[in-house]
Amino acid sequence: MKRRTLLSLGFVTVMASGAALAAPVQNNNITEDEVRAAQQAWGAALIQISQDYAKGGQAKAQATAEAVLNQAYGYKMGPVLFKPTLATGDTTFRTTHEGALAYFVGNNPNYGDDGFALKGWQGYEFNNAAVYINGDLALTMGHVTLTNKAGETTTVDKTWGFKKDDEGQLRIVLHHSSLPFVAN
Amino acid sequence: MKRRTLLSLGFVTVMASGAALAAPVQNNNITEDEVRAAQQAWGAALIQISQDYAKGGQAKAQATAEAVLNQAYGYKMGPVLFKPTLATGDTTFRTTHEGALAYFVGNNPNYGDDGFALKGWQGYEFNNAAVYINGDLALTMGHVTLTNKAGETTTVDKTWGFKKDDEGQLRIVLHHSSLPFVAN
Amino acid sequence: MKRRTLLSLGFVTVMASGAALAAPVQNNNITEDEVRAAQQAWGAALIQISQDYAKGGQAKAQATAEAVLNQAYGYKMGPVLFKPTLATGDTTFRTTHEGALAYFVGNNPNYGDDGFALKGWQGYEFNNAAVYINGDLALTMGHVTLTNKAGETTTVDKTWGFKKDDEGQLRIVLHHSSLPFVAN
Amino acid sequence: MKRRTLLSLGFVTVMASGAALAAPVQNNNITEDEVRAAQQAWGAALIQISQDYAKGGQAKAQATAEAVLNQAYGYKMGPVLFKPTLATGDTTFRTTHEGALAYFVGNNPNYGDDGFALKGWQGYEFNNAAVYINGDLALTMGHVTLTNKAGETTTVDKTWGFKKDDEGQLRIVLHHSSLPFVAN
Repeated sequence: MKRRTLLSLGFVTVMASGAALAAPVQNNNITEDEVRAAQQAWGAALIQISQDYAKGGQAKAQATAEAVLNQAYGYKMGPVLFKPTLATGDTTFRTTHEGALAYFVGNNPNYGDDGFALKGWQGYEFNNAAVYINGDLALTMGHVTLTNKAGETTTVDKTWGFKKDDEGQLRIVLHHSSLPFVAN
Repeated sequence: MKRRTLLSLGFVTVMASGAALAAPVQNNNITEDEVRAAQQAWGAALIQISQDYAKGGQAKAQATAEAVLNQAYGYKMGPVLFKPTLATGDTTFRTTHEGALAYFVGNNPNYGDDGFALKGWQGYEFNNAAVYINGDLALTMGHVTLTNKAGETTTVDKTWGFKKDDEGQLRIVLHHSSLPFVAN
Repeated sequence: MKRRTLLSLGFVTVMASGAALAAPVQNNNITEDEVRAAQQAWGAALIQISQDYAKGGQAKAQATAEAVLNQAYGYKMGPVLFKPTLATGDTTFRTTHEGALAYFVGNNPNYGDDGFALKGWQGYEFNNAAVYINGDLALTMGHVTLTNKAGETTTVDKTWGFKKDDEGQLRIVLHHSSLPFVAN
Repeated sequence: MKRRTLLSLGFVTVMASGAALAAPVQNNNITEDEVRAAQQAWGAALIQISQDYAKGGQAKAQATAEAVLNQAYGYKMGPVLFKPTLATGDTTFRTTHEGALAYFVGNNPNYGDDGFALKGWQGYEFNNAAVYINGDLALTMGHVTLTNKAGETTTVDKTWGFKKDDEGQLRIVLHHSSLPFVAN
């Protein structure tokens, strides 16, 4: 190839106009801010279910919990790795939507739950020990402290995995919650 | 453009030889088999530390545990989201190599651990409730059952996150282990 | 903690039943097979547009091309990095659905295209030089050879980027096609 | 479970101290800034090779090109999807380190290259048409304009794929460069 030929092809006009416009950027990754917002939303949703239970009883709490599960969790995308705080025995893992709903609002004979979200929660705080971000997936681990209407607090060890879906919505695909270890 | 020009460029020879060779494929993703192997390796490593403790005492156990942490965990890549089974209080989360080593073999005044890996473990079994694979990261949740030399078993609820690094080695970047919930 | 307490918690029954069931696996990654199928589908779609043009004229070709773009490309998810073979000047890059449609079937005064897919294509073959798989994204580079109804072939240098979306469908998010370099 | 038990476990002290410390965040994702810096570094490296060739001849240019390939490209991680601007025929794709080095500095009887980086490049400018970020991989497409010592410019259509490795270094794993299409 002769350099002359190669060099005759420059698009000076294109370059000038191209430089004036910012290139569109498609970024599928999760940000730290999105993770914190999703953690906050989880707490707000739990409190909402508690309040709806107080106001509207089981039916209203159950409707809200359904909406929360569809919005905040990834059950529509497949199994969710969910080990709720108080689940045990052969219903320890709630990989299905049904199992998760039973945990939050009870009322399902297939599970022994009395409804974790019905316990009058009013306050919520999370304290991350560390955050790990990998593409469209983020992992958090830390303490979560819930406050009930009597002002009593419960702190649990909690791990979350959030997946950012095609609509940019974060969905919980992993949730391991456990009471702190107590030596006998 | 005239079609004549476009069509005159075919590389029939190239195509023929190209078809004969399989294209190299670089695949950075984790496979299910790799995940199961890494779970198995974790159990084998725990038993190895126990055996080395029995044979060589604290020093030998500690050396093995160091090697295991460098091999199986991702502390060289950054903080690890590690909540060990029996950790609690202000040392609940072991995001550093030092904290993890203390948990497995004790002997560190900054932590109150008596050394989880020194408890004479001899058997290991995992039963996944679900597996979630996302790029070079895989998450597992399930029961892990350990057997000691007396044949007694301990089952824990365990979540792992494995990251496949540039060398193709899986490293634990997330590990949440908890004793099953017991209702009072 | 006394070991006695720890060891009394084993769920032998759970373990036995758990071992009998395969854990559900959610895997978001692209496989090599899916990539090859998507390459094949691209060629089939191009030929389909050509055939529909022969049978039903511009309107039918345009309807098919619309369907192909919605199915095979990722324009609904954001900008697509598309440099078609014969695009040049200030319409070199077709990051929008409109620009891509104009390239394939012409008939758009904003672009000078005469419709690449209307050229009577009847055969299609790809020969990958290498494939790169990274999570839900796969990249391929190689030669693609098209055959027209006269049996003449055109070979281009082609790079594709395929993104697997939440429905498991592969979408082209990158497509750089160029005629082979010819020394003067 | 009695709520009394659950609520007695709060770690008020832990929470207070935890809130005072920012959680460490491990983020493996590529940022837009890193992508632009890597594009800039590619141009600077090309000019460096040209300058080293002028000052130190083939040997010096080759040593610099080796260093550039090891630093800026991902050949140590596997095959690179590289279609250089002026490569053609059965050496169109340079998936190996050897092929890439031959392209940049020539002097390899297995390839017909006269050394693209030896052409006295002095200036460099890129204008992205779009950027696509997916985890630790980023794709860019746009025009790149090179200026030689005579002040003449060459503009090419260029696609890059950058992979962020475990050390946080961006490596080119995809590079498709082509001269603009010219209608006959």
